Amino acid sequence: MIIVGEKINTSLKGVTEAVRNRDAAFIQQRAREQAEKGAHYIDVNCGTLVSEEVEALAWLVETVQEAVDLPCCIDSPDPLAIASGLKVHRGKPLINSITAEEGRYQGIIPLVKEYKAGIIALLIDDAHGMPHDAATRIQIGCGLVKRLMEDGVAVEDIYIDPLIQPIGTSTDMGVVAIETIQGIKKEYPGIHFMCGLSNVSFGLPKRGLLNRTFLALCMMAGLDGAILDPGNREMMKMIVATEALLDRDEYCMGYIQAFRSGLLDD
Amino acid sequence: MIIVGEKINTSLKGVTEAVRNRDAAFIQQRAREQAEKGAHYIDVNCGTLVSEEVEALAWLVETVQEAVDLPCCIDSPDPLAIASGLKVHRGKPLINSITAEEGRYQGIIPLVKEYKAGIIALLIDDAHGMPHDAATRIQIGCGLVKRLMEDGVAVEDIYIDPLIQPIGTSTDMGVVAIETIQGIKKEYPGIHFMCGLSNVSFGLPKRGLLNRTFLALCMMAGLDGAILDPGNREMMKMIVATEALLDRDEYCMGYIQAFRSGLLDD
Repeated sequence: MIIVGEKINTSLKGVTEAVRNRDAAFIQQRAREQAEKGAHYIDVNCGTLVSEEVEALAWLVETVQEAVDLPCCIDSPDPLAIASGLKVHRGKPLINSITAEEGRYQGIIPLVKEYKAGIIALLIDDAHGMPHDAATRIQIGCGLVKRLMEDGVAVEDIYIDPLIQPIGTSTDMGVVAIETIQGIKKEYPGIHFMCGLSNVSFGLPKRGLLNRTFLALCMMAGLDGAILDPGNREMMKMIVATEALLDRDEYCMGYIQAFRSGLLDD
Repeated sequence: MIIVGEKINTSLKGVTEAVRNRDAAFIQQRAREQAEKGAHYIDVNCGTLVSEEVEALAWLVETVQEAVDLPCCIDSPDPLAIASGLKVHRGKPLINSITAEEGRYQGIIPLVKEYKAGIIALLIDDAHGMPHDAATRIQIGCGLVKRLMEDGVAVEDIYIDPLIQPIGTSTDMGVVAIETIQGIKKEYPGIHFMCGLSNVSFGLPKRGLLNRTFLALCMMAGLDGAILDPGNREMMKMIVATEALLDRDEYCMGYIQAFRSGLLDD
């Protein structure tokens, strides 16, 4: 499972101030904590700063990579901000995100190619926006994968985000996301799937229980990446258990090591 | 989800003495606790008593049904003991179990027909014993369903047990069980699937985490029944969450009610 640590995001308390004040110690501590707890990428997102974002995102990438030997997931709605983060990034970055919307696609694809970046692709296009049903999502997803590959992106660099939406609003949204993963994976078994989980539980109580249970179900469908807080112990326990149960953990050694390290303790 | 309460079994501490001493208060307390916590059937098993089993199983059925208004799952290797339990049972019983082994099939099928019982069917035959691979299990399962239906058993009275075995012995056993459920369900969408989960974690630490995570995965494959301890709160929480996530809980009301009743508390 590919873990993208989500904790450096200016929508979270304390992070906006840290970025505004260029408080490298705060950011680097948060990067190190996530690395220690198993993150494979550190997400950097300062989209809420808007006018300062281009400069701030580059500073975040440099600051994070001074502290940890991990690539970043460069997360922004603005291609200019993504470009400024990529420019200073060391190693192979992940970009969050491209869509099938023509403007967004054209804005992001040159960056994916120039930096040979991994790319998170959202199932949104100009005709449908964010479609409700699995069939339309699968159609958009397969079209996006095909176009990305035609543009020279390696299949293993594509991360489809199935777009998790709240079951509290529409009870079929969990099944729609699961069927979307299954449908696209059937066509393109070599690609990755990556998303945040927490939308699924929006508006319902005990959200952590729903989020982590949904992660296990999505993993069975084919999800192999998630944007989450690697310090969320219950979530990480469920990932380790699910990998063992789905025969993705040779000799169950990952599970046994997690037990020995104390991760599985209550 | 159909819950069969597993706590009245002479392989569990205290139950043998209670059955030997015909301690109705002990047995009835255990039946009431399971009913309150959500059991739909009370499993009664005194297979370890061997020579006393025929008489003891009838006593268990009567004793349990004096205390709770639920059917029993009559669980024995011995057709004579099952017959004696069925004779005194009120309502529609569940029999645990039939197999595709000729002797076992012939011993149990007359009882299933006479009492119009639900029947748990294990994927075991004379040629293969308990097969390791999903393809053979699916073949045995589909053959069993076909034969049961030819013998007049209603499709909704058939509960296939996919045979959960330890991932600690062979890491693919979780996937084999999942694929077995999926494969048989594809052929016979109207049947039920029912099993115990705890074998999956045999020999590994933190078994509860594995058992409940596996339950969620099996539910996604099509499992709609389980033999478990309804007093296992973490397990019951996962069932409620999984039903909501898989769109098996209208308006998420089961989830919200579980929250209000305190079931989802940590």
